[in-house]
Amino acid sequence: MDGVIGDQLPGLFENLRLELRRGCLSLAVLAQLRTERYGYTLRKALEEAGLDIDEGTLYPLLRRLESQGLLQSEWREESKRKKRFYRLSPAGEHILEQLVDELRRINTSLERITAEN
Amino acid sequence: MDGVIGDQLPGLFENLRLELRRGCLSLAVLAQLRTERYGYTLRKALEEAGLDIDEGTLYPLLRRLESQGLLQSEWREESKRKKRFYRLSPAGEHILEQLVDELRRINTSLERITAEN
Repeated sequence: MDGVIGDQLPGLFENLRLELRRGCLSLAVLAQLRTERYGYTLRKALEEAGLDIDEGTLYPLLRRLESQGLLQSEWREESKRKKRFYRLSPAGEHILEQLVDELRRINTSLERITAEN
Repeated sequence: MDGVIGDQLPGLFENLRLELRRGCLSLAVLAQLRTERYGYTLRKALEEAGLDIDEGTLYPLLRRLESQGLLQSEWREESKRKKRFYRLSPAGEHILEQLVDELRRINTSLERITAEN
């Protein structure tokens, strides 16, 4: 843990941490959009739950999930400003259910693996 | 959930499922290598724990983690065949501990998010 490798450890950890978080962002976004939200309130809701996500990651993800038919969106005026409201589509609900099951399976595996030795 | 979108749902789910799994593969591999293993036994151990990983994903990942100093490897003969044995390095142990903590935080967030509504 000394020398060159030691100096690189914080960056390495950060990359692995992001890898871990990235994997569950779509799931988290879909789950939060069972309630209709616009970009800003969605980000705040994710942040409050402990999953920070920057705009440059969130907005492309929303567009991708919508183009895949998992989200629906609508422009509406709120507080005198047009905002794009997103919510889960029926297909999105279906996929979300499966993903939550999959997450449970993965966590069971990871608990087994990390508890060993 | 009908028509074009309906036809694409299985593929979409598979992509999101892989996204979710991919995020925790490094963590799973590091955790499994607290015990020294070679490629084949590592794959079997992951598979038994419920995390299938194909060779084309596992071997590049092992090389990456070793080049980052998180794993150590050694060629040794076993059953008359040379095998490359991998195990966690001291730096890898350090990172693994932090990743397990991070995984707990992410899961707490996801539980909160998916339980809502």
